[in-house]
Amino acid sequence: MEKVYSDSLELHRKHHGKLEVQSKVPVANRADLSLAYTPGVGQVSIEIGKDHALARELTLKSNSVAVVSDGSAILGLGNLGPYAAIPVMEGKAVLFKEFAGIDAFPICLDTQDTEEIIATVKRIAPVFGGINLEDIAAPRCFEIEERLQRELDIPVLHDDQHGTAVVVLAALLNALKLRGSDKENVKVVMNGAGAAGIAVSKLLLQYGFTDLTLCDSRGVLYDGRSDLAGEKAKIARQTNRTRQMGDLASALAGADVFIGVSKANVLTADAVRSMNARPIVFALANPIPEIMPDAARAAGAFIVATGRSDFPNQINNVLAFPGIFRGALDHQVRQITNDMLIRAAENLAAHVADPRPDAVLPSVFDKGVVLAVASAMV
Amino acid sequence: MEKVYSDSLELHRKHHGKLEVQSKVPVANRADLSLAYTPGVGQVSIEIGKDHALARELTLKSNSVAVVSDGSAILGLGNLGPYAAIPVMEGKAVLFKEFAGIDAFPICLDTQDTEEIIATVKRIAPVFGGINLEDIAAPRCFEIEERLQRELDIPVLHDDQHGTAVVVLAALLNALKLRGSDKENVKVVMNGAGAAGIAVSKLLLQYGFTDLTLCDSRGVLYDGRSDLAGEKAKIARQTNRTRQMGDLASALAGADVFIGVSKANVLTADAVRSMNARPIVFALANPIPEIMPDAARAAGAFIVATGRSDFPNQINNVLAFPGIFRGALDHQVRQITNDMLIRAAENLAAHVADPRPDAVLPSVFDKGVVLAVASAMV
Repeated sequence: MEKVYSDSLELHRKHHGKLEVQSKVPVANRADLSLAYTPGVGQVSIEIGKDHALARELTLKSNSVAVVSDGSAILGLGNLGPYAAIPVMEGKAVLFKEFAGIDAFPICLDTQDTEEIIATVKRIAPVFGGINLEDIAAPRCFEIEERLQRELDIPVLHDDQHGTAVVVLAALLNALKLRGSDKENVKVVMNGAGAAGIAVSKLLLQYGFTDLTLCDSRGVLYDGRSDLAGEKAKIARQTNRTRQMGDLASALAGADVFIGVSKANVLTADAVRSMNARPIVFALANPIPEIMPDAARAAGAFIVATGRSDFPNQINNVLAFPGIFRGALDHQVRQITNDMLIRAAENLAAHVADPRPDAVLPSVFDKGVVLAVASAMV
Repeated sequence: MEKVYSDSLELHRKHHGKLEVQSKVPVANRADLSLAYTPGVGQVSIEIGKDHALARELTLKSNSVAVVSDGSAILGLGNLGPYAAIPVMEGKAVLFKEFAGIDAFPICLDTQDTEEIIATVKRIAPVFGGINLEDIAAPRCFEIEERLQRELDIPVLHDDQHGTAVVVLAALLNALKLRGSDKENVKVVMNGAGAAGIAVSKLLLQYGFTDLTLCDSRGVLYDGRSDLAGEKAKIARQTNRTRQMGDLASALAGADVFIGVSKANVLTADAVRSMNARPIVFALANPIPEIMPDAARAAGAFIVATGRSDFPNQINNVLAFPGIFRGALDHQVRQITNDMLIRAAENLAAHVADPRPDAVLPSVFDKGVVLAVASAMV
């Protein structure tokens, strides 16, 4: 077993997980108890009973996020179920706290039924100021997010979709700037039409990109492809305007930007060479990218980004979700809109004072990132 | 507004609630991240995916309890709903941490439907090592607890029932010892046939008390009383063996022990005087007891206990639930049995080295209590 895996197991075994719950108030004597608990707390209940909105001032709801998963699409590992999701959701909660001071708690659901997931999240919502959906498989993730956004009065965000979309758009803005290209004049090819691929595509379209083609494992998505349904059919109608057919390699000829969010090793050096000059290559499959950065650059790529921390230009959701929820909680946002996500991406891009081909994004440890993103949530 | 209420509101407003979530592991650099989150955490997920039981070793499930309420019976305040329940469940979680080192998290449910509550708790159970039900109205609390106990593989306890029962039995054991009475030879009258009254009654019967009579707002419970159903009808069949009818005052004539878990000011001095010599009076209604301790003693009561911290002999669940769950988690108990609860009460009583009429229970701040109770959970 690779050392990072055995070390991680050891870390989890030693601490019995990564998360703990703590009191913010003292309970050392009877006077403390009478304020934090009975009888004093009764008055807090009475006030909130009269006006539910006070829960945002007087309880943990002011700063809490549920990290909700059904374990159906854990990292790149697939459907391992809710128990296997716990360490990942705990890790996510750790990041929420460390990067944005948010009190997040893992909710790993023992159901993979869309209606049951929706009903359950709605029923546990009172305690939370926001809902972060995580590692829920497509296509059910789309309906779950949409319905919860509509039916709850707190912000709901499927991070695999929108966190990824914000960071990809931010990186792309700086990459296009360095390349001297406009969003209206570049051809973008996306490999992957799952949660991330569709969310990135939607945000690029909304931002004003016009020439966008998606591919899935069966090739290019086009309007009328007989095996498409739901969100895939919808995005097929909004993209690939010349109704091109064929495989990924054929779509890439003459493209300016490749964005891979699906499968290792699918981008060949020849395919990169078939793109327009100085192409932008975001090879985000994890842990093995669509093409290794060295190979992409050798084939002429101008800017290469991956999901990995051991290469330059890491596209990592931790650049987005802590700030998105920090801002949403601070401004008591009911719904996170595409306009907010676009502003978040612009702020994230602008936060890089001096973009270079090997530095189109800030470091994940840049303490200013969370505020730059949070300030977009208004 | 009384100072304790305004001070409590101020405390809650200042801290925005009482609970926070914290990381137990560092995430200061890329190496930390690779262990706490991706890629390292993937291996932890894979291992748990193969064997769910590992979640108890490698995740917060090892030490977590959900504090679940539907807000239908908050303290003595009634049905104020799930938002009003948040500060109470947060307070409970604070006590779990401070008294037993347990990571508890409030789950306040936006439903008061029995089947929906059961389904929801089952679906969120993977993350938790135990379920503490709280402030859920009778009679639905009985079915919810019973069903969850049967259908989940983690311990489930409705604290309003069993936490109360353990502490009452412990106090009663020391009180009877001081009075020189045996459980077989005392007549116990209980006022209140809700969650607490029925649970205390069941535990006393199981322990070997034989002469027990319950009263509700309509008077004495007897087998065949036409308005009784469910748990009330069941306990009526198991108690009041002489099938006495009438009101609380008539039941108390010649009784040795009064236990009130329902309504303020229902016990008159005359009624205390009608009891046997040196009666034991547990007047647990909160914040105003069934009779004030001074009045009870003036009428001849030998030992008086209340739920209040400003009188001697405070019957407070915090003497029980932290230790019950500490023991259940440490010993990976699947179900908390009545035998365990009885041992917990015996341990709690025995923990008072030198019981006196004004000290039949340990102080809630006695650090040894949690271990005394926890050691019964095997």
